[in-house]
Amino acid sequence: MDFERLMGARFDARPNPRQIFSAMKKLIVFLSLFAAALAAPAKIVTKSVPYEHAGVKLEGFLAYDDEKTAQGKLPGVLVVHEWWGLNDYAKHRAVMLARLGYVAFAVDMYGDGASTTDASKAKELSSQFYGKPLMAERAQAGLDQLLATGLVDETKVAAIGYCFGGAVCQVLAYSGAPLAGIVSFHGSLVPAPAGASNKAKFLICHGALDPFSKPEAIAAFKKSMDDGGFDYQFISYAGAVHAFTNPNADRLAQQNGLSGIGYNAAADHRSWQHMRLFFDELFGNAKN
Amino acid sequence: MDFERLMGARFDARPNPRQIFSAMKKLIVFLSLFAAALAAPAKIVTKSVPYEHAGVKLEGFLAYDDEKTAQGKLPGVLVVHEWWGLNDYAKHRAVMLARLGYVAFAVDMYGDGASTTDASKAKELSSQFYGKPLMAERAQAGLDQLLATGLVDETKVAAIGYCFGGAVCQVLAYSGAPLAGIVSFHGSLVPAPAGASNKAKFLICHGALDPFSKPEAIAAFKKSMDDGGFDYQFISYAGAVHAFTNPNADRLAQQNGLSGIGYNAAADHRSWQHMRLFFDELFGNAKN
Repeated sequence: MDFERLMGARFDARPNPRQIFSAMKKLIVFLSLFAAALAAPAKIVTKSVPYEHAGVKLEGFLAYDDEKTAQGKLPGVLVVHEWWGLNDYAKHRAVMLARLGYVAFAVDMYGDGASTTDASKAKELSSQFYGKPLMAERAQAGLDQLLATGLVDETKVAAIGYCFGGAVCQVLAYSGAPLAGIVSFHGSLVPAPAGASNKAKFLICHGALDPFSKPEAIAAFKKSMDDGGFDYQFISYAGAVHAFTNPNADRLAQQNGLSGIGYNAAADHRSWQHMRLFFDELFGNAKN
Repeated sequence: MDFERLMGARFDARPNPRQIFSAMKKLIVFLSLFAAALAAPAKIVTKSVPYEHAGVKLEGFLAYDDEKTAQGKLPGVLVVHEWWGLNDYAKHRAVMLARLGYVAFAVDMYGDGASTTDASKAKELSSQFYGKPLMAERAQAGLDQLLATGLVDETKVAAIGYCFGGAVCQVLAYSGAPLAGIVSFHGSLVPAPAGASNKAKFLICHGALDPFSKPEAIAAFKKSMDDGGFDYQFISYAGAVHAFTNPNADRLAQQNGLSGIGYNAAADHRSWQHMRLFFDELFGNAKN
């Protein structure tokens, strides 16, 4: 191998520090590429996980990178699905989280890992939880499964949820579950009950044009956060309506004759980046 | 140099790919540290820049890393000060931006680079701009200086501003200035005039408890953004009041008998990170 040619530099008899530095940088880039080529592409392990809560058979979905779990415990993230149930969309988010180095568990709130594309059925399924202790309890059962994997650093656990799942994450936090933080993507907003024992930080990713969250509901939610001394960040994304992170939203809306629901690529990308930054803060990877 | 010892691994006669990969990773870490040690600490060049607008002598502050400008044109960022004027706080932000690889120009809105710590004087100085064409014009004069350095890629220019300066950035964008984006930190909110020719994206970093922005003012601002089809992100930070990014805010508030003004380290750090992410999106460094 012609070292000088590789480095793109010819050294004088006495190379100066700048030349050495320049060559060193090129060598690092070269070695990084070489190492990357040697490394197998990240292998994401996925598993269906049967479990049970209050007599209901559930089937969650676990995802992690086993090269990373082999090196030690990882931060864990619970993923809570939209009102459609545990479908491929929620599972895909778990895989995306696994690629980022998290152990992700997509919870099944409804039973048998079932999902629907029928809005009236989805409404019926999700309605059994709103305003009831069952919402936090069922989510907690999923969180228990995540922790039972033994792969997770129990001091570094978060939950994310979409639409219905965003509300579930808020309620799970209010219940006192040991979460470092939650992220609600276009979630229904559930004001914090007075005296909630929550310690989780909140990141609320909200579509500025979401017709399902009225200004009064947003104001009531924020007021409960302020009054309760919650640590939260509330982000509104221009042009985004309900379900803005789900590429299937337009099709589902059309099938069900729903309006105010649709995908927004910019808001999807931005909110995912905001989530990553939030996790970096929670789990100690933050840049200065 | 004992290579095997350095790498912390003893190779068999035929090392397997995993061993090679592991050693390679360690070598990269070692070389990175070595290269970092060789590299001089980033040298930030700072300069006072006298200029003039409408007969008023101004004195801005330019900051950049000359190792980076030596490699080509960089994205540029205009920094617009609080109502206190071009003080060390605004200059420090310019230096922070220079360290991140931007050419930063802290504009002087008032003249002679003057600043005050007296709120009544600050109010008088800032009042001459609100609602007048002078606000955008004076900021544009600063933007012209930034571009006149010849160091900036003119397709990659943003503006950031604090309090009064946040409002200035909004108004500069509305004037049609060629900005890719603006960031307003605890800025006064100026609703977009109908038909504004702005193409800039907006990032609004807002203290959730800022008493200087009434809910109605926030609603009017957002409505003007929505109606005008602006690309914006509006972030509320829990617990933050006015001037939350300025470590001197508490002292200035106390000196002047002002309430609702104070530093908030978490909101400061988070909003700076959000700005960085926003710039990564604007200037093409975004991660996937």
